[in-house]
Amino acid sequence: MKLLLINPNTTATMTEMVLAVARRLVAPGTELAGATGRFGAAYVATRSAYAIAAHAALDAWAEHADDNFDAVLLACFGDPGLDGLRELCTVPVVGMADASIQLAASLGKRFGIVTGGDRWGPMLHEFVASRGLSDRLASVQTVAPTGGDIARDPQGSMALLAKACCTAAEEGADTVILGGAGLAGLGPAIRNQVPVPVIDSTEAAVRMTEAVASARLGKATVGTFAAPPMVPSIGLSPALAKYISGL
Amino acid sequence: MKLLLINPNTTATMTEMVLAVARRLVAPGTELAGATGRFGAAYVATRSAYAIAAHAALDAWAEHADDNFDAVLLACFGDPGLDGLRELCTVPVVGMADASIQLAASLGKRFGIVTGGDRWGPMLHEFVASRGLSDRLASVQTVAPTGGDIARDPQGSMALLAKACCTAAEEGADTVILGGAGLAGLGPAIRNQVPVPVIDSTEAAVRMTEAVASARLGKATVGTFAAPPMVPSIGLSPALAKYISGL
Amino acid sequence: MKLLLINPNTTATMTEMVLAVARRLVAPGTELAGATGRFGAAYVATRSAYAIAAHAALDAWAEHADDNFDAVLLACFGDPGLDGLRELCTVPVVGMADASIQLAASLGKRFGIVTGGDRWGPMLHEFVASRGLSDRLASVQTVAPTGGDIARDPQGSMALLAKACCTAAEEGADTVILGGAGLAGLGPAIRNQVPVPVIDSTEAAVRMTEAVASARLGKATVGTFAAPPMVPSIGLSPALAKYISGL
Amino acid sequence: MKLLLINPNTTATMTEMVLAVARRLVAPGTELAGATGRFGAAYVATRSAYAIAAHAALDAWAEHADDNFDAVLLACFGDPGLDGLRELCTVPVVGMADASIQLAASLGKRFGIVTGGDRWGPMLHEFVASRGLSDRLASVQTVAPTGGDIARDPQGSMALLAKACCTAAEEGADTVILGGAGLAGLGPAIRNQVPVPVIDSTEAAVRMTEAVASARLGKATVGTFAAPPMVPSIGLSPALAKYISGL
Amino acid sequence: MKLLLINPNTTATMTEMVLAVARRLVAPGTELAGATGRFGAAYVATRSAYAIAAHAALDAWAEHADDNFDAVLLACFGDPGLDGLRELCTVPVVGMADASIQLAASLGKRFGIVTGGDRWGPMLHEFVASRGLSDRLASVQTVAPTGGDIARDPQGSMALLAKACCTAAEEGADTVILGGAGLAGLGPAIRNQVPVPVIDSTEAAVRMTEAVASARLGKATVGTFAAPPMVPSIGLSPALAKYISGL
Amino acid sequence: MKLLLINPNTTATMTEMVLAVARRLVAPGTELAGATGRFGAAYVATRSAYAIAAHAALDAWAEHADDNFDAVLLACFGDPGLDGLRELCTVPVVGMADASIQLAASLGKRFGIVTGGDRWGPMLHEFVASRGLSDRLASVQTVAPTGGDIARDPQGSMALLAKACCTAAEEGADTVILGGAGLAGLGPAIRNQVPVPVIDSTEAAVRMTEAVASARLGKATVGTFAAPPMVPSIGLSPALAKYISGL
Repeated sequence: MKLLLINPNTTATMTEMVLAVARRLVAPGTELAGATGRFGAAYVATRSAYAIAAHAALDAWAEHADDNFDAVLLACFGDPGLDGLRELCTVPVVGMADASIQLAASLGKRFGIVTGGDRWGPMLHEFVASRGLSDRLASVQTVAPTGGDIARDPQGSMALLAKACCTAAEEGADTVILGGAGLAGLGPAIRNQVPVPVIDSTEAAVRMTEAVASARLGKATVGTFAAPPMVPSIGLSPALAKYISGL
Repeated sequence: MKLLLINPNTTATMTEMVLAVARRLVAPGTELAGATGRFGAAYVATRSAYAIAAHAALDAWAEHADDNFDAVLLACFGDPGLDGLRELCTVPVVGMADASIQLAASLGKRFGIVTGGDRWGPMLHEFVASRGLSDRLASVQTVAPTGGDIARDPQGSMALLAKACCTAAEEGADTVILGGAGLAGLGPAIRNQVPVPVIDSTEAAVRMTEAVASARLGKATVGTFAAPPMVPSIGLSPALAKYISGL
Repeated sequence: MKLLLINPNTTATMTEMVLAVARRLVAPGTELAGATGRFGAAYVATRSAYAIAAHAALDAWAEHADDNFDAVLLACFGDPGLDGLRELCTVPVVGMADASIQLAASLGKRFGIVTGGDRWGPMLHEFVASRGLSDRLASVQTVAPTGGDIARDPQGSMALLAKACCTAAEEGADTVILGGAGLAGLGPAIRNQVPVPVIDSTEAAVRMTEAVASARLGKATVGTFAAPPMVPSIGLSPALAKYISGL
Repeated sequence: MKLLLINPNTTATMTEMVLAVARRLVAPGTELAGATGRFGAAYVATRSAYAIAAHAALDAWAEHADDNFDAVLLACFGDPGLDGLRELCTVPVVGMADASIQLAASLGKRFGIVTGGDRWGPMLHEFVASRGLSDRLASVQTVAPTGGDIARDPQGSMALLAKACCTAAEEGADTVILGGAGLAGLGPAIRNQVPVPVIDSTEAAVRMTEAVASARLGKATVGTFAAPPMVPSIGLSPALAKYISGL
Repeated sequence: MKLLLINPNTTATMTEMVLAVARRLVAPGTELAGATGRFGAAYVATRSAYAIAAHAALDAWAEHADDNFDAVLLACFGDPGLDGLRELCTVPVVGMADASIQLAASLGKRFGIVTGGDRWGPMLHEFVASRGLSDRLASVQTVAPTGGDIARDPQGSMALLAKACCTAAEEGADTVILGGAGLAGLGPAIRNQVPVPVIDSTEAAVRMTEAVASARLGKATVGTFAAPPMVPSIGLSPALAKYISGL
Repeated sequence: MKLLLINPNTTATMTEMVLAVARRLVAPGTELAGATGRFGAAYVATRSAYAIAAHAALDAWAEHADDNFDAVLLACFGDPGLDGLRELCTVPVVGMADASIQLAASLGKRFGIVTGGDRWGPMLHEFVASRGLSDRLASVQTVAPTGGDIARDPQGSMALLAKACCTAAEEGADTVILGGAGLAGLGPAIRNQVPVPVIDSTEAAVRMTEAVASARLGKATVGTFAAPPMVPSIGLSPALAKYISGL
């Protein structure tokens, strides 16, 4: 099985870090390739950077789209570009936040989210609402360092993150998602400090991607995720233009 | 890895059939044990049978609870007893319907459900509503034969089921869940007759169970799914009484 | 008029206590019979005990179903087995929690619930949500003693319960439900210590049962509460098997 | 027990008709007084007439408020003035539509409403939504004759109303409310032509009023239904001015 | 352009004050006429006064309805009578609260409301819920002085109002509405003391009224806001009777 | 007053057309400048093109951001990039779809949307849901020609669009929005063929932009729309990089 992991943040070292965590999780024989955003913020933590990252995710995907992957993992917690990718791709696309909250929702009643970067708070509330799961969201806890900051110094943030997870549990979360590409792999590290299960968003996304890739579900030929009609465009990379405009 | 599959329907041949499908799906080395409800309806297709099946699921689990499973799969689409099991078990419990709708929800915007037995229609609408996902449910299509009927003659129902899946797609489903233990394995068989991805509920549940078992998330020590306080009881099996009353 | 009061808790003294309170409330000439759960927890205060109690409620009903009651009152706040009973019974079935919240909802805008047993908190939030009334629920206050504990020592809990009712009023409840079979009759006793109307759940359920029994509404012959199709079963009491399997 | 029935429609014969039906339903010893709106539409069937009727309901109540009733029944399906009455009255106020939908909601999952006057359709959808019960509303069926028309010729409308009830059942209603003061008493008359229980709104309201009056719940001394602060006013009847302005 | 401003509070000086503020805002050439409620509370701050004000708004409008206005502005924050006016009027009717929350909703994600009079708190929560915007309402802050009190001493309340706006911002409001006819024009005065945009409800309503009047949208000829059927009535002013009863 | 109109579609003639319509609507003295997307689809009608257009909207804005506009109008019905723009801009940003649905919502109870391009159907349902207004959306009607097609031949589409508006009215819309930059100015042209008010999305957006610009509301200094922290970036235009990365 061959999976493409897209990091729409423009920090290549973060892509490598997430890939490293992912490779420890996948089944033997599963190959993982990575793609990093070619334009936009080093780490997405605002609404404007998010908007740019959605385009960057499509752009990064288009560069690799010929390589016959079995599924795509969008590795930015908040999932910029997810809907567009699902329209263009012929294989399933799993969003890191989407997979995490669905997994959390299938393990209990209410869940919490802990992530880096204060600006993500309202954005994640809106994200969960867009999935219809607001009533099941017990708490969003943000810590001041962004995912980018945490990726540079994971040890330094662990106490802070564990404490935020405990707060989410106190506010009624049956499970807590530790969300963010920059936090990849920290879930297991803090698990024993938190009184409810902690879901690492990278692990959730990787496992869900493997699961849906295995199922070989095929592409819709009708409806909102069928291949889109081609439309003229300007100013896009040749690779992306091929998928938007058909040449 | 060792998984327990509980079929709260009281038809042992159905348990065997679901186990057979599940064994084809799991990773090498994963062991699967089965447990069948010891009392209640041969196949759950009404509200009264559902209420009994919830007790039967707990009872069946308790018989096997000493065997150190890594996760439990509740193999009845509609998930009778899921909340109670989650309270009692120290490992994750995955419901067949719960896992299927979460997987469907993470693959598109709106999903449909096709199942056997007309009485399931309102019950599944309520089930999806209890998850907060009503706005994402495009269609529930029931066919007259129950899951029990279909399990006895899968070939005879395939055209009917494929047609119901196509109707769900026409009503706006981006993916369709073929739901029911009795329909285990039929998803792949009708996939090419349906214009959107078809999720087999057994496959979805098995893959989700493997994924959560791998994550070794641990048991909550606080909150609504922490181990419950013991309370005196009467009339239960000795195995179940141990978990309700502590002896 | 003849009413059947089912207590799915397996404590017969509690059934007697609730019957005694109910008999003081009903119109002259109304007869009340009681049935106690024959298996399960002495007092339902967890999700697992709740699942068993739903079966126990059906089982207890089936033992008395031949006696031509005009309505059934399910006397456990949380209403385990309510949907199944409504399917099987040819007369109206009133749930103690369901009746209480509907009555509260028809007296003001927002209501609160006070009950015994901390584990009931999330379960009651989910119960109210399943009725669509979450936005009208101002507060759920649980006290540590369970309904079973309170039934054994009502005087000792009254100050605690009155205080919890006042807290609910402070949190915006226009009326407060004192919920639980074990708390039967305590509503009037604490009413003068609470600044908003206090609804005793036993009283609400009894009065609502009388009201619907008087209306002689008849049984649906179509839809989700019509008599269910018979299906083979095993391991049920002969009385219940008759209603599930037709013999 | 002494109950006040307010008909904010300005048709006194309708008040008499509803009183006659109500008197057949109440317990021996229960007294019923009636009050008819002194200004506004003969029969409320539009948004503008509804707005006027709310004032008329308060005005009619104020004329009788000194008479020490145990509860008030607002006998116009749609309940104009209900919130204002609840603020002013020291005894419970039951709305005809409110009581009916709460009773219907406590008897099944989904309900339908049948009433006279096409303009009521959207208004009743909004009414049910304001109670949080939209997801439980299976159908609103209006017939062209208004409640006023039907009250003048009940026999002539019965086939039409029975057919509308059947349509509501086909659309998924587990119970159907026959709503409208002008339709008082028609519920039992068409019950045997409809495959699900039919709730007569007058009967529902009368029984609910008796039930809450019996409970002697008292008046809130805090919150949104406590007695309001007095405020200067002009142009009101002396009786109403006393309750708004304290003289 | 010619606009009618209806103040259903019965305080003529307040009408003059709102008109004075409105006249400073409208485009050159726009004429503004005012109408004051002829019966009811001096200032609406309770549910009972609100019910009366709805009738008073229709009554006041009918007195001026022959004057060919291009739009109507209902100048009481809470909008009593809005639906009835929309039914009767052939030109658009803009409610002060309705316009303010729509404007706030189109400027950010979540908004807050600050107003005078504690009784308005739950009423405004219900108002926003009736618009479907509860999830976007971050906070309602009431101050003890009513709008009537504030109108008599605006300077004395400004610190109190500014503080309440800051609290709303702390509770997550992206914009804050300063609501109430009695607070007309105070928005700009406190704007620099509040860290998020402050919407003056009078200004919002005036601008929205001008905008919709300009669009010359016409009157619906079908549906719930088409001209209503005439129905006999009693006790109304001759002007209003003409619109309810056609003479 | 000076307004910036951003057309994130990459068709400059469409920008000119919308500007021409807008200039006929604004008050004397109001200046309008236009900006066209520099990369992406000629006309946005798919999810992938939408994602790119959000970035293009930010990019186009940044090119003009130094010019001290009083407000920004995002002229693509569906509003790609709206949240990001609101974060970056110090003046109000009005989205064409957002303004239209808020205006429609303030004119009646339920509204419909008619637009060009079948792919917009589910996208607009999701857009309205993200505003909390799903219960007020009576109908979305798409016609096969996209907005781009219609802009090239407005006369040829008018019968089709009028018919779609009538269908929306039949499905319960009290007002209908004719949505899409490419349909600018068609609203008034078909108004007399439709039995309910027709809102032209360009007109709604222009009038709302003028209204909010006049109010001079200021920029939030706290919360989700305060100026974002600067973060390193790559590959952006120098103008946009300045606003994302601070140089």
